[in-house]
Amino acid sequence: MYSLTVNDHVMIAHSLPDEFFGPAQGMHGATLTVEATFTRAELDEHAVVLDIGQAMEMLDDALSPLHYANLDEHPDFAGKLSTTEATAHYIGQRLADSLSDQPDVGITVTLTENPRAKVAYTVPERP
Amino acid sequence: MYSLTVNDHVMIAHSLPDEFFGPAQGMHGATLTVEATFTRAELDEHAVVLDIGQAMEMLDDALSPLHYANLDEHPDFAGKLSTTEATAHYIGQRLADSLSDQPDVGITVTLTENPRAKVAYTVPERP
Amino acid sequence: MYSLTVNDHVMIAHSLPDEFFGPAQGMHGATLTVEATFTRAELDEHAVVLDIGQAMEMLDDALSPLHYANLDEHPDFAGKLSTTEATAHYIGQRLADSLSDQPDVGITVTLTENPRAKVAYTVPERP
Amino acid sequence: MYSLTVNDHVMIAHSLPDEFFGPAQGMHGATLTVEATFTRAELDEHAVVLDIGQAMEMLDDALSPLHYANLDEHPDFAGKLSTTEATAHYIGQRLADSLSDQPDVGITVTLTENPRAKVAYTVPERP
Amino acid sequence: MYSLTVNDHVMIAHSLPDEFFGPAQGMHGATLTVEATFTRAELDEHAVVLDIGQAMEMLDDALSPLHYANLDEHPDFAGKLSTTEATAHYIGQRLADSLSDQPDVGITVTLTENPRAKVAYTVPERP
Amino acid sequence: MYSLTVNDHVMIAHSLPDEFFGPAQGMHGATLTVEATFTRAELDEHAVVLDIGQAMEMLDDALSPLHYANLDEHPDFAGKLSTTEATAHYIGQRLADSLSDQPDVGITVTLTENPRAKVAYTVPERP
Repeated sequence: MYSLTVNDHVMIAHSLPDEFFGPAQGMHGATLTVEATFTRAELDEHAVVLDIGQAMEMLDDALSPLHYANLDEHPDFAGKLSTTEATAHYIGQRLADSLSDQPDVGITVTLTENPRAKVAYTVPERP
Repeated sequence: MYSLTVNDHVMIAHSLPDEFFGPAQGMHGATLTVEATFTRAELDEHAVVLDIGQAMEMLDDALSPLHYANLDEHPDFAGKLSTTEATAHYIGQRLADSLSDQPDVGITVTLTENPRAKVAYTVPERP
Repeated sequence: MYSLTVNDHVMIAHSLPDEFFGPAQGMHGATLTVEATFTRAELDEHAVVLDIGQAMEMLDDALSPLHYANLDEHPDFAGKLSTTEATAHYIGQRLADSLSDQPDVGITVTLTENPRAKVAYTVPERP
Repeated sequence: MYSLTVNDHVMIAHSLPDEFFGPAQGMHGATLTVEATFTRAELDEHAVVLDIGQAMEMLDDALSPLHYANLDEHPDFAGKLSTTEATAHYIGQRLADSLSDQPDVGITVTLTENPRAKVAYTVPERP
Repeated sequence: MYSLTVNDHVMIAHSLPDEFFGPAQGMHGATLTVEATFTRAELDEHAVVLDIGQAMEMLDDALSPLHYANLDEHPDFAGKLSTTEATAHYIGQRLADSLSDQPDVGITVTLTENPRAKVAYTVPERP
Repeated sequence: MYSLTVNDHVMIAHSLPDEFFGPAQGMHGATLTVEATFTRAELDEHAVVLDIGQAMEMLDDALSPLHYANLDEHPDFAGKLSTTEATAHYIGQRLADSLSDQPDVGITVTLTENPRAKVAYTVPERP
């Protein structure tokens, strides 16, 4: 089993309007460091999991709606809580769409929201 | 599959009185950076794995006996080698006790003992 | 010359409404990792720069207005651009106020706003 | 499940002579930070996964052919693309050879080639 | 005093053909993580040291001759030892050229060549 | 101005028997990550600050009394508080002794005692 992980970051604002979230209910923000991990049982004919350049471009595409974004006004999060977990799911789905022709590639997205907390989401096996 | 990881640290002294441990047989110490990872198949109704505040409190509780502790004199390690692995197991058990009502939450504890070595323990599946 | 550095973080939202800032003009956010460095020519009678606990409390106090804050609505930033540099200045001033009785202690604040950019501010010598 | 991870680094030169690799086709180089993770269902009689000293020596042995090496002229990579993935496989095999008498120990090698990209290889289960 | 630091990396090959360098005499390589720090007594009219985007572009320009480069064949290092220190000097000069119209901006370049060693160069005060 | 920084770590036990230190009065321990920074106005004839290998050996020598040490029983700390600041001073002095024939080399020692606190000591100018 092999994996390739590339990373980037986005800087977003949002609120979490449910009293469950205590001080995070109001408008605040985060730098989300995003790691995308791609896994594969065997390497391809170039002895890689994926081309690093291609992997970085896919991550860049997946993140493009989130750069300097206010998730409270973002159509993709309308009516949803934009928790870090939900954001990881969102990015994972976008990466899965980019790799729809390579269902054997596993995808995990890890978001570090601050030096003491991070979240990960693994896309379910794709048929 | 989702996970949430929070971290903290403890500063402990101990000795490893078995010649197997060479220079670490005598009294020495370590800053243990502790990561607690909680995993779950689906998010809860607030779109999170666990509330981050609750996760940090659980980790804080789990670590409270270890802050500025001398493990050689610690009742919970009496008659045992307080290796980093054993300490990870100890913390994992304490977290499992805190989450006894949520057996579907997986738990992994990772301890970094120095910039070149770390240890992890995954609590077995809970019935 | 000795220094002590302690760190913490805040998660803020803000906008930078000047076209100079390009995509950062709209509402977005950041996790700011904050390092506070205290310098001193000689150690005190306890062989430290400052007590670490006291240093962490001072930093905690300095940061308390910024936790989960929207700087656009924050009275302390009214009519000002809340750039990372301006935020570093703000924190530095608050630390200087806490240490007004110890003018020989130098103060530098370093804010990391994302994995690729950070900013520092050194409080001028205090009379 | 327990794991022990130790790390070290090598500084290598190589080229990737296939137009697939774009600007990396020519002679260039990398600092590869190498993490070796050893996993085990239960601890041994000394309450460890492996002795850390032994683990570091095994990693040191595994990396010895790679220190300050030009992989283009390295007999072990003759006729092969020395991608980071292939290098991870090479190190994993060397670690597996060192642990041939302990087939129950799992082995994963993680290579960070730059701050934005890393690769991992998990040695298949050993009979 | 304020500073802004941005970072990037390059992956280079080189040799250090002087027996002083022991095992580093032969062709090998490095990932150089490059931090460029810009300092200034006061902020500009936008409350920043420099625009981050501009700072990143300047660093990108300064590094462009070094991406995937073999310094042994690089005209800018002809007849010189391409030590990490010399490379830091080279990058510092290129940044100073970009900022020739702003001589009040101080410049420091820090290169991390592996997890255990880094080098810094501060451009002398500019008239 | 140029600098070279190399790092290593030690794992020590100690107590700080003064009520000023609160919970750190009892026996506890720390992993101290040690950075040694050497500065110099100009490079030597090999275009380096110091040979990295020599710098690492000097650091290794400076740290040798501290590996797996109990500072409470260490003759060099007899009758002294072994604060992190005092330990930084101790290491700085040992490095200065090694470089007594090169008084133009500046020396700073930085000790990270946990993820949230570090200390630095700069050896005064040497005649």
